[in-house]
Amino acid sequence: MSELPQANLRVVLIEPRNPLNIGAAARAMSNFGFLDLRLVKPYDVAFREAVSGVGAGHLLQSARIHESVAESLEGISLVVGATGIGPRQFHHPVYRLERGGRMLKRHLAAAPAALLFGCEKFGLSNDDLSHCHYLVHIPTRVEHDSMNLGQAVAICLYELQRSPMGARRLPGAAELAPDEEVERFTVVLLNMLEQSGYSDFEAGPATVEKTRRLVRRLALRSGDVNLWTGILRQALWRMRRGSEGAESGSTGTDFK
Amino acid sequence: MSELPQANLRVVLIEPRNPLNIGAAARAMSNFGFLDLRLVKPYDVAFREAVSGVGAGHLLQSARIHESVAESLEGISLVVGATGIGPRQFHHPVYRLERGGRMLKRHLAAAPAALLFGCEKFGLSNDDLSHCHYLVHIPTRVEHDSMNLGQAVAICLYELQRSPMGARRLPGAAELAPDEEVERFTVVLLNMLEQSGYSDFEAGPATVEKTRRLVRRLALRSGDVNLWTGILRQALWRMRRGSEGAESGSTGTDFK
Repeated sequence: MSELPQANLRVVLIEPRNPLNIGAAARAMSNFGFLDLRLVKPYDVAFREAVSGVGAGHLLQSARIHESVAESLEGISLVVGATGIGPRQFHHPVYRLERGGRMLKRHLAAAPAALLFGCEKFGLSNDDLSHCHYLVHIPTRVEHDSMNLGQAVAICLYELQRSPMGARRLPGAAELAPDEEVERFTVVLLNMLEQSGYSDFEAGPATVEKTRRLVRRLALRSGDVNLWTGILRQALWRMRRGSEGAESGSTGTDFK
Repeated sequence: MSELPQANLRVVLIEPRNPLNIGAAARAMSNFGFLDLRLVKPYDVAFREAVSGVGAGHLLQSARIHESVAESLEGISLVVGATGIGPRQFHHPVYRLERGGRMLKRHLAAAPAALLFGCEKFGLSNDDLSHCHYLVHIPTRVEHDSMNLGQAVAICLYELQRSPMGARRLPGAAELAPDEEVERFTVVLLNMLEQSGYSDFEAGPATVEKTRRLVRRLALRSGDVNLWTGILRQALWRMRRGSEGAESGSTGTDFK
């Protein structure tokens, strides 16, 4: 086995429908020693059938169920989506697994990350994607791009633990901010967009998704995200108070 | 896709029992462009069910059935067996897939080869093994070595067409913004910090430097930097005008 700290990887299956796929994903995780499985809104029946199936019962029984993608990402500082390419246009960087996997490994060497898989039929939704920093795809034929979920999970995990040499820590990886802090910044930004009347802003789901993507592309660091949140909070406070106010409402962190 | 002449590889499943595994193996072959599938003494029912299943019907329908391993290997000059390790003693060289796959690829570049998978329950028998030149194994945990057949086929084929060279960036990856745009954003941010009264802000050289560093750490992309500049300008405009102002001063770029 490689030196990769496998406990740092969380595998998140979003709305899986087929118990055999859930079981296959869990089995591959167990084969390669990745034990943190999360399911977001799995079909109830599918999940119960999967738990009673053969192969990786123990891992499945300890899998946690979540009501939202955001909830499943607590404590995670890098979110990577696995996707086919198809005819879709993505707003994210998309890397072949060979390269995206290398990037993910570097991060895992130092800090927790999540790998997201969408439902069997439609893959990752735009809302799912808005949580991701970048995407990886398994280099399949254009003529037959759609992979089975259990096989896709197995291949991604194989790639991650593949190189006995790899998984060296790169500076920076450890410093990415956890998802909940990034989300807090996103909420303050949304308030600011609304309050300032930015470009006929309306806080519908599409705008929230776009804003979340915009923020994730920043790949904010742990210290910086709180600084930026403070900056926007202060601007928001000033906007609400009008420009003539006297004292500052800032609780700003110092620059570093 | 890589340069590997995929037609040179034959995948041989020996006595497969589970139609879902046969279907999954065929689907992975189709995903990666390996189209020569042979089945040695498959359970009849399993095979008929697999052919009628979804995913890779075409490839399965053209799969050939053989009565013996020897028959399935006609015209093949290198035979490689895929196996778990378990407690078994092998008389063959056994390589991790990373290495064995490299050897197999070298051969495939010039001549046909076969990759053999044993039945789900027992793997390759001693008789099957006697046809092999060497064995490859997927590096799984000792505690859970037994892989699902469909997943094992998928991983072996992924390894064969894996191309570290092909790991280039795909369209969608954005480029970093030119410095002048980043600097323009920095100036607007400095104005906003001052106007909002952030943390006793004073625009001395040290603060300007710190702010510039903070912004550079964002590694803003070309499209995004103008979006962020617009967002801050709008906030600034609103602060100056007070919160009661009517029309928007936004010249905001649309989200992407």
